[in-house]
Amino acid sequence: MKRQWDRSPFLYPTPVVLVTCVGSEGKPNAFTATCVGIACEKPFFVTLSVHPFLYSYSLIMATNEVVINVPTDNLLEEVVYCGRVSGRKEDKFASKKLTPMPASKVRPPLIKECPVNIECVVKHRLSLGLHDLFVCEVVATHVDDDLFTQEGKLDLHKLKFLACIKATGEWRNLRVMYINQ
Amino acid sequence: MKRQWDRSPFLYPTPVVLVTCVGSEGKPNAFTATCVGIACEKPFFVTLSVHPFLYSYSLIMATNEVVINVPTDNLLEEVVYCGRVSGRKEDKFASKKLTPMPASKVRPPLIKECPVNIECVVKHRLSLGLHDLFVCEVVATHVDDDLFTQEGKLDLHKLKFLACIKATGEWRNLRVMYINQ
Repeated sequence: MKRQWDRSPFLYPTPVVLVTCVGSEGKPNAFTATCVGIACEKPFFVTLSVHPFLYSYSLIMATNEVVINVPTDNLLEEVVYCGRVSGRKEDKFASKKLTPMPASKVRPPLIKECPVNIECVVKHRLSLGLHDLFVCEVVATHVDDDLFTQEGKLDLHKLKFLACIKATGEWRNLRVMYINQ
Repeated sequence: MKRQWDRSPFLYPTPVVLVTCVGSEGKPNAFTATCVGIACEKPFFVTLSVHPFLYSYSLIMATNEVVINVPTDNLLEEVVYCGRVSGRKEDKFASKKLTPMPASKVRPPLIKECPVNIECVVKHRLSLGLHDLFVCEVVATHVDDDLFTQEGKLDLHKLKFLACIKATGEWRNLRVMYINQ
């Protein structure tokens, strides 16, 4: 038997990322996002959904650029913090000792501590309700050198990704888990 | 140090799902998808990216309806099969003993063996390149009864989700992993 479910879009696990953005004044911000996904594999497109009332939303709208930084499990504390605190009041890079690094093609910075950094330009935006869906073209991706073998192959065993199951639809019930590789 | 990466959109792990669709002739098909994500939490929207050359693409275009069925790790063999074989030639429900169940609001069937089934109506489509991005509104979600406690609470420990890391960009390198809860 099955029963109806109406508390969340039950599509899990989703990636957990730290998104960086920067407004016209140039001060960067970082926020935690779990409504992200791959949209196209050639050219590379990703989706990112953002609440219009977020401080970061206004920054993204000002520049149409973001960097999606993929954290690993050693950054769990920073991920939870950047999802709870608003960049209107806090400099989250300073509070959590996250190191901004210049990106190659966009204005928002990479987060050095994240092993994967995806530079994106917003190409489409759809207002769906609580979230706006940004469809973003990937213009550059950076991966930490030490994730590669001496032969230049990517060694995924070195990457301890985070994933999210947020089935009750509430942020405080976010479950971030280590993936057993 | 970081190095450039140009082999895939490096946004992992993604969910692994079995999508069902049905053409105007009524014969259902199922295919494996990993380019899916949550797009909006109120109302519920999800994204699904599909190659236009897939058999299922023509079915989706005929009805604008899909069901996203979330499998667990006991369905790994079926998931790999439904990603490799075309529904043009095979009845995948019959070959893999997947049981179609009538949906409540759309024409494609639920897959009974999947513990979560998300009925969707396509509301937007963006042609991005290799993939078209379907932005789908969730019109009903069904969850297996035995995932709930006697008090009616969802017990996520009972759900052994699959996740995908496909960093080399090739299907045969799909890595499906059990998430350690």
